Amino acid sequence: MSKVKLVVNAAGRSVPTEVNGKPVIAYKGIGKHKPEGRKFGPRISSCADFPDDGNKLVPSLKEALIRSGLKDGMTISTHHHFRNGDLIAVQIFDIASELGVKNLVWFPSASFECHAPLIKYLEDGTIHHIEGSMNGQLGRFTSHGKMKGVGVLRSHGGRYQAVQDGEVAIDIAVIAAPTADFFGNANGVDGPAACGLLGFALADSQYADKVIVVTDNLVPFPCVPWQIQGNYVDHVVQVDQVGVPSKIVSGTTEITKSPDRLLLAEMTARFCEHAGIIKDGFSFQAGAGGTALSIGIYFAELLKAKGMKARFARGGSNKYLVNMLNEGLVDFILDGQTFDLDGVKSMRENPNHVSTSPFTSYNYHGKGNFASMLDVVILGATEVDVNFNANVVTHSDGLLLHGIGGWQNCLFAKCTILPVPLFRDRIPVIRDEVTTLCGPGELIDVIVTERGIAINPLRTDLIERMKNSGLPIKTIHELKAEAEKICGVPAKQKFENEIVAVVKWIDGTVLDTIYKVMP
Amino acid sequence: MSKVKLVVNAAGRSVPTEVNGKPVIAYKGIGKHKPEGRKFGPRISSCADFPDDGNKLVPSLKEALIRSGLKDGMTISTHHHFRNGDLIAVQIFDIASELGVKNLVWFPSASFECHAPLIKYLEDGTIHHIEGSMNGQLGRFTSHGKMKGVGVLRSHGGRYQAVQDGEVAIDIAVIAAPTADFFGNANGVDGPAACGLLGFALADSQYADKVIVVTDNLVPFPCVPWQIQGNYVDHVVQVDQVGVPSKIVSGTTEITKSPDRLLLAEMTARFCEHAGIIKDGFSFQAGAGGTALSIGIYFAELLKAKGMKARFARGGSNKYLVNMLNEGLVDFILDGQTFDLDGVKSMRENPNHVSTSPFTSYNYHGKGNFASMLDVVILGATEVDVNFNANVVTHSDGLLLHGIGGWQNCLFAKCTILPVPLFRDRIPVIRDEVTTLCGPGELIDVIVTERGIAINPLRTDLIERMKNSGLPIKTIHELKAEAEKICGVPAKQKFENEIVAVVKWIDGTVLDTIYKVMP
Repeated sequence: MSKVKLVVNAAGRSVPTEVNGKPVIAYKGIGKHKPEGRKFGPRISSCADFPDDGNKLVPSLKEALIRSGLKDGMTISTHHHFRNGDLIAVQIFDIASELGVKNLVWFPSASFECHAPLIKYLEDGTIHHIEGSMNGQLGRFTSHGKMKGVGVLRSHGGRYQAVQDGEVAIDIAVIAAPTADFFGNANGVDGPAACGLLGFALADSQYADKVIVVTDNLVPFPCVPWQIQGNYVDHVVQVDQVGVPSKIVSGTTEITKSPDRLLLAEMTARFCEHAGIIKDGFSFQAGAGGTALSIGIYFAELLKAKGMKARFARGGSNKYLVNMLNEGLVDFILDGQTFDLDGVKSMRENPNHVSTSPFTSYNYHGKGNFASMLDVVILGATEVDVNFNANVVTHSDGLLLHGIGGWQNCLFAKCTILPVPLFRDRIPVIRDEVTTLCGPGELIDVIVTERGIAINPLRTDLIERMKNSGLPIKTIHELKAEAEKICGVPAKQKFENEIVAVVKWIDGTVLDTIYKVMP
Repeated sequence: MSKVKLVVNAAGRSVPTEVNGKPVIAYKGIGKHKPEGRKFGPRISSCADFPDDGNKLVPSLKEALIRSGLKDGMTISTHHHFRNGDLIAVQIFDIASELGVKNLVWFPSASFECHAPLIKYLEDGTIHHIEGSMNGQLGRFTSHGKMKGVGVLRSHGGRYQAVQDGEVAIDIAVIAAPTADFFGNANGVDGPAACGLLGFALADSQYADKVIVVTDNLVPFPCVPWQIQGNYVDHVVQVDQVGVPSKIVSGTTEITKSPDRLLLAEMTARFCEHAGIIKDGFSFQAGAGGTALSIGIYFAELLKAKGMKARFARGGSNKYLVNMLNEGLVDFILDGQTFDLDGVKSMRENPNHVSTSPFTSYNYHGKGNFASMLDVVILGATEVDVNFNANVVTHSDGLLLHGIGGWQNCLFAKCTILPVPLFRDRIPVIRDEVTTLCGPGELIDVIVTERGIAINPLRTDLIERMKNSGLPIKTIHELKAEAEKICGVPAKQKFENEIVAVVKWIDGTVLDTIYKVMP
């Protein structure tokens, strides 16, 4: 890959001009890349080729994949609503391997540790490369330069955009569904593997050439609600189990007990209060991590104390957000993935707990999306730099260990706050330059650390409002210096001259390059 | 138009090879036309061109049309969920006329008497022609050869298919909505002009170049449920009134008091019972006419008596169907349009009263649809012929007076029954040949008249099952002879040699031609 031509993009990062043999566009700046052309047009189907009685059941996933024409070089997509409890993705490639199919592209909406068994298929050439998050073991494998192709990292919205725009043509989408009927209507709210919703599979259903629904809870037609519409589905497969319920629920949905994190949460909430963000009818999004959850609880307390309520909260939902909905502290949860069973139950029963998708929430190549309407979003980061650029996929040692999720998309909120510790394992989080650029600094407004809060100089309004707040407002350089005083100045990580992955921006352009780590 | 080349299609009807200057394909037989190519790809948008805060409000419909680039020759679409209470469609063309725009194509999902004021725009060249139902006064105008272009009649499913496949490229869709937010999320269940749902505008929202939502009930974001997704919407307009509630509810939603019609209803219900169609878990669809409503009531009584329930009923919903849902006689209503306020209320409040669209229910160029899954559908007709072909758009005098609605799509049910009187105004309904072919006879199973029931000879199974039923089973020729004994043999209608409209089949091919009536 080192022979590929590189160009310097608008963020000053060197990026390749082609990835896996296809030309790509370098990042041009926020809102600067104006897409031309038309959305991808999937092949037109005819009801004449489908059973009149609506019954699309086939005996096995293998049979469904064969009927879908599985062959070398195809792109196979899956969704990640089952999180670490997914039982289907690995089966697909077990079957492909058994059939001797090679050079597949795996296009998941995210990957988890349960997908580590796919490493053997990356090694033996069944899978050529992954376009999607390469977490944990898959990330290490990639970072060590062992994947045949180049990984492509996209945000949830960027994944929808790529499919919609035809950048990624999915040959076969396999949609594991907690409940489905024989026609292929499917949902995530019912059944033993209930995961809430199936929004991450929406683009796949709409645009893939062939769509297979796999379920362990087949109900008589109609499966209501139909979050996935059977009219997009080719085959339906019934299996014993699609997911492990105990692993579907994320492990990160308990509020933090760490005093450091609680401090970050409290400072973030106080910042929002002083900045005038928390007001009647406001909207917010906080992730699923312990810090973010704690911030939600502070918000709830503030709203209760002020006799106010939020208009909407964007999920990842969890029991704390559901409590706010039930207590009338927020009118609506607009939810992209449920993180616990309280979230699933609420989505099933409460019409104000609304199922969303990357199309409604995040797709940058739509006529607007929900992400930019939020008053405040609170996100994590592995690193930030003195220009407020942030990294969310690699660690400072260069290892690719996380996916992007909806992180890039959320940066468009009216106020983006990153509460981060000043250092982790004695490695400073604030750097001169991030190892990998995932979010341009001009979209990141506030860095909250346990030793002070830095406001992006572009946000003169926030700087003005925080005067006399009593909160420890500092410059980002001051914060960086404090960390370095304790931990020392970190050496810049060195890499091999071999591209292992690229980070796409939300408009499909290439924002940064990830290189092979030194042995 | 008389110079256009004609061909004889698979139904034996002469049809033009081009319509309004565009080539068209002649009907090839049921399931015989295999579409090639890909779905229409709308232009890719960018959030960079839309307001970050989600506010797409513009001051007036005129302003929205100007910003949408309204100009000569464009195709403008509207939906018909407000039925005869629509206040928006005429306003669009008032504005176009004021702006001096000419040769527009109006592409409604259906038209009503309230649209008769558009005749002046058809006369002065503001509107070139209509693609959609030409009912009542618009139909007479068309039948008299006064429309500049050729009308194109499509079923609800055919309209979705035509948009999806790019046969009709909508330049500007105007979606009148009972409730919407500033982002363009919209629904039909709330607000003073509540009409239930907005499914007929779905294709328009997904595929039109520009989409305008017009509402008289603007609510804070998010408008939930969002039957129309704001991510497809360019502009939102707030007006005083979008529809006249009293005229939104159809006038045809009372059960019939006519003894003749009640007899038809009773015979149809008895036929279904004897044929073994009414059983636990069955499904049915009956239209909104008085006869159809009465059949629904017979079904309800039969189910109650037998201790059974239906799995689903397809709407048009009305208070009778809602009662069945509430009494537990049917599990789900899969509803395409609500015909009364009971239907609207039920859709708003009951999660088992499900909003559907022409995509889910009727689109023949999908991977199956709901229509073919129904055990029985009961439909009307203006004429049938001895080959069980049926007409639903013209009268025997040749006048085009009705649209197709979902009629063609529904013919794919497992059993299609047309209860019709043997004659109307002393004109026999059963003919040697229908004036206009809308539904090929091989899809029509049973004709029920007050003097006997004819079963399509292709349905040997039904003929067998109805032996010893005690019902007056006759041949279609016997029924025709009975009518002619009373009314005489009708003369075949003569037409001018000028094409005024064509009838499309559900796959986009041309099924029949409608000619100008003699003066």
